[in-house]
Amino acid sequence: MPCYRITIEYDGRDLVGWQRQKNGPSVQQHIEEAIFDFCGEDVRIQGAGRTDAGVHALGQVATFELTSDRKPQVVMNALNYHLKPAPIAILDCAEVEAEFSARFSATKRHYLYRIINRRAPLTVDVGLAWLVKRELNVDAMNDAAKVLVGRHDFTSFRAAACQANSPIRTLEKLTVSRDGDEIQVHASAISFLHNQVRSMVGSLSLVGTGQWTRDTLQEALDAKDRQRAGPNAPPYGLYLTRVDYG
Amino acid sequence: MPCYRITIEYDGRDLVGWQRQKNGPSVQQHIEEAIFDFCGEDVRIQGAGRTDAGVHALGQVATFELTSDRKPQVVMNALNYHLKPAPIAILDCAEVEAEFSARFSATKRHYLYRIINRRAPLTVDVGLAWLVKRELNVDAMNDAAKVLVGRHDFTSFRAAACQANSPIRTLEKLTVSRDGDEIQVHASAISFLHNQVRSMVGSLSLVGTGQWTRDTLQEALDAKDRQRAGPNAPPYGLYLTRVDYG
Repeated sequence: MPCYRITIEYDGRDLVGWQRQKNGPSVQQHIEEAIFDFCGEDVRIQGAGRTDAGVHALGQVATFELTSDRKPQVVMNALNYHLKPAPIAILDCAEVEAEFSARFSATKRHYLYRIINRRAPLTVDVGLAWLVKRELNVDAMNDAAKVLVGRHDFTSFRAAACQANSPIRTLEKLTVSRDGDEIQVHASAISFLHNQVRSMVGSLSLVGTGQWTRDTLQEALDAKDRQRAGPNAPPYGLYLTRVDYG
Repeated sequence: MPCYRITIEYDGRDLVGWQRQKNGPSVQQHIEEAIFDFCGEDVRIQGAGRTDAGVHALGQVATFELTSDRKPQVVMNALNYHLKPAPIAILDCAEVEAEFSARFSATKRHYLYRIINRRAPLTVDVGLAWLVKRELNVDAMNDAAKVLVGRHDFTSFRAAACQANSPIRTLEKLTVSRDGDEIQVHASAISFLHNQVRSMVGSLSLVGTGQWTRDTLQEALDAKDRQRAGPNAPPYGLYLTRVDYG
């Protein structure tokens, strides 16, 4: 049976997230329905990252099997056709070995968090970035971010609902930079806990306003207690930008 | 009477453009109504660039007078409050001399045109960029763009409705560059003719697909005939990014 890997972009604003939910349309459901509409096959797709409601993706990856052999380009065009008008696009499709899994073969996941730091409301970026009106000290945020880089118990920065067996993760990159009004947080790791990026960004924003220091962040990490982290940053600033394999 | 200069960002998708129109809400109308709601003064504001329906701005500039003196910060916050929920934000407000005009004092206007060049439909960029599915040769586009830089009669690249007295303009910058799927065209000049940027981008896209050469573009310019330019690129890829003064 041929296996396919698809690269997916979506605008999470009107979606309930990656996974099928009872309360509305998910990315997974839209794509599985598009596959059915295209070739009549009722398949389950597996995604590299289970993004929450409102979270966007520029390079989500998923895998699935079909019973009949079809050219990847045909699959991609057919899915894009049947996905309309959902805000989901298949950017790439390739045939892969049956052993390849979008989820388990991933060697690194990359996230971007966009903050617009200004007094004025958002216009073109509504739903695509988090507006923070209080001035953020990006140097302090970037310095404090180093506390979180490396192998740690991230219990303080995981959702109550997180289903991972272990709270230990190795954060390979966490940087904060500014270009004009826009602040970008880049985070990379083999894998993340549920809500980890939003929780880290929320805590870093407290460093940015001066409410927290680098030491407060260190203490929050060391406490291994969800109550000690700052509030989660909202989902709509978060983008799954890329997943690496091999 | 105190005069104010405001810097404005807007999402042009649901607006009929800068100027007041009978067929829907314009940026000018929204801001003039916000000024009235704020202080009861019925003023006319003057903008640096009269953007068309669907065109966005990241740094439009406008000037207006009030009869009573108010702090610029107060004006900015009040306008942002009264503009809600219109997709228009006042990024900055400053008091200026009565001689200063957003339109006539401008020394340079900067536009950005965003093209997404890929097969897949748009998601997060719907209404914020032009999707071109045919592969575009950016090097050829950037090379051909040099034909248009400088002082020329841009009759071929102006709208039929253009009200400028002269078709002569000095195009100071026109560059085309690619970052992944995104192609950005940057254009700068003291002033532009109506539809000039969209017309130039439309013609450059023909160079990008190979339908036109640099010589075709030169001939279109030399012809001084609107029929010889390519079709206008759609408005929603265009952004007025900045206006310089002094």
